[in-house]
Amino acid sequence: MTEAGLSTRVVAYAYESGRLRLLDQRLLPHREEFLDCDSALETAEAIRSLAVRGAPLIGVAAAYGLCAEARRVAARSPADLDAALEVAMARLATARPTAVNLFASVARMRRVVERTAAGLPGDRVAALEREAGRIAEEDRAACAEMGRRGAEWILARVAAPAAVTVLTHCNAGALATAGVGTALGIVRALAARREVEVLADETRPFLQGARLTAWELQRDGLSVTLLPDVAAASTIASGRVHAVLVGADRIARNGDVANKVGTYGLALACRAHGVPFLVAAPATTLDPECASGAEIPIELRDPEEVLTMRSPSDGLIRLGPPGVAALYPAFDVTPAALVSAIVTERGISEPPHDRNLLPFLS
Amino acid sequence: MTEAGLSTRVVAYAYESGRLRLLDQRLLPHREEFLDCDSALETAEAIRSLAVRGAPLIGVAAAYGLCAEARRVAARSPADLDAALEVAMARLATARPTAVNLFASVARMRRVVERTAAGLPGDRVAALEREAGRIAEEDRAACAEMGRRGAEWILARVAAPAAVTVLTHCNAGALATAGVGTALGIVRALAARREVEVLADETRPFLQGARLTAWELQRDGLSVTLLPDVAAASTIASGRVHAVLVGADRIARNGDVANKVGTYGLALACRAHGVPFLVAAPATTLDPECASGAEIPIELRDPEEVLTMRSPSDGLIRLGPPGVAALYPAFDVTPAALVSAIVTERGISEPPHDRNLLPFLS
Repeated sequence: MTEAGLSTRVVAYAYESGRLRLLDQRLLPHREEFLDCDSALETAEAIRSLAVRGAPLIGVAAAYGLCAEARRVAARSPADLDAALEVAMARLATARPTAVNLFASVARMRRVVERTAAGLPGDRVAALEREAGRIAEEDRAACAEMGRRGAEWILARVAAPAAVTVLTHCNAGALATAGVGTALGIVRALAARREVEVLADETRPFLQGARLTAWELQRDGLSVTLLPDVAAASTIASGRVHAVLVGADRIARNGDVANKVGTYGLALACRAHGVPFLVAAPATTLDPECASGAEIPIELRDPEEVLTMRSPSDGLIRLGPPGVAALYPAFDVTPAALVSAIVTERGISEPPHDRNLLPFLS
Repeated sequence: MTEAGLSTRVVAYAYESGRLRLLDQRLLPHREEFLDCDSALETAEAIRSLAVRGAPLIGVAAAYGLCAEARRVAARSPADLDAALEVAMARLATARPTAVNLFASVARMRRVVERTAAGLPGDRVAALEREAGRIAEEDRAACAEMGRRGAEWILARVAAPAAVTVLTHCNAGALATAGVGTALGIVRALAARREVEVLADETRPFLQGARLTAWELQRDGLSVTLLPDVAAASTIASGRVHAVLVGADRIARNGDVANKVGTYGLALACRAHGVPFLVAAPATTLDPECASGAEIPIELRDPEEVLTMRSPSDGLIRLGPPGVAALYPAFDVTPAALVSAIVTERGISEPPHDRNLLPFLS
């Protein structure tokens, strides 16, 4: 995928003839294996289990998962197509609660299901596949546009020498979108113009930074250094970081940002040290139904994901003592006032976001 | 060990007849094994490798490590005693750079070495062992006193209902001291008066929270819930936390606090949400030679400690892709202005610490 110089060698998914192939992100960086999803159920499970993750990418995966289901049912029992699609859409839309892209994508597919209700099964499948393709293509284009806009914003404001150092959290890259990424799209656009060093939070407990961001940037030949999440605040305080770039799972109308847990702490450190804090997200991540961050449901994941770690041969290694309790809120909310810029493909909002974000809402 | 109702079932070390036995904290919570140190070299290596850690406890371990060395050399080649002790003190004092207790403890043992220079080897060993015993005993008493003072401070200021929820980072407990702990000493003193819930940061990469604090509190029947380090800021923002309690590895004359990396981020979150941020440390952790946090050397540990995790049977599991770089500053500095109270056994300092800490300096 190449858009105006912005490219990646990372392939996160493929869809062909009723089969959605997802790069199984649980196995990275140790193994590159694709997970085949031939149904909506398999796709929903892949989303739930984090085989595929990243707000924009789960929107794309859900759309193609519905196509896979449509193909499967249209071939075997076309009379059941509407009922099957109804169940499939419900399953996909409830696979995870926080990222709004998932719901937006399913809602868009639902409109095609309804519009084509009187059509032949084969034609309906084709219409769904065209729509899924458009969702993916729009996400790819949005990534490229966010990359260009974000890089320009940073270079205009950061008095950086030849090399720019950015810090990022979780993975908001080619493994989280259909394109070059949101935050990492900006990194790629910066890298086309300057030397860029990326400091990547490891992002416990699922280690999207250590496993995914590091792998993705390495694959594209970009410079990346991992830090324990706990080291981000003092690294920002040290003056080494020119900007912090993150993605988002949902952005409220007032500009409050729900993103991977840990984002809020980064925003506080940026504020304390005058470091720009940028959120990059396609317009599909903006939720016009949501007045503020207080209304965004925060997914509480299984404490076992904190208490254990996957080992190649031991299965799950227990980190804490048996019987200890754990809490795992997978996201947090960063108040709009702490966000220097929200970068979308439609433009960039600076505070006050409750006013400046309005033109970019659908 | 019981002091005025403050007790623990945790035994972190024992010393007898030239052998220092250290609970090997690298193996917790999976295995409880003691590491035998019969020399200063073995003790220094135990400190360096984190088999024993915690600023006050490494001070105690270094003192007993010197005793072990003195016994060993006095028995085999008493003529070499002074030379051996000189090498031993240098080795112990340079095992780790940040915690000042280590240097304070070695300096105190050095004074005994010098004072007894004309004595018989056996008498000198006995004098060293008495001094090590005093260092440990004073640390035990300091923990109990900090516990009482800190609990009183919190109960006077926190409008908590029946149950008090505190958040802590790393391990500042019985596994970090000769007594009931610094921050966890306060927890134990609170628990004697109220219901207490402890939220423990897992504290990557060495997981002192997940492996040590959780184990230690469980062992003493106290309520503990683990959180990923990244979840602390939003948990503090939620209003659930009445106070954050941490230990310290070194406190500058102006009240700047060096402690386990991640502490600074907690202090920022506390400030943003009006939550008291308490640092508990014995007076041995105050460094009168150090004007501010900028002068405290921050230990940079091996990046492999970030990039790998120990598994019971796989040895080291690699977390990131091969060849990726990592940074591991083991400590950070929290500016004095963010610290609501520095709790020592001599009294409590509130801001401005540059004035109020002075009476507690040695």
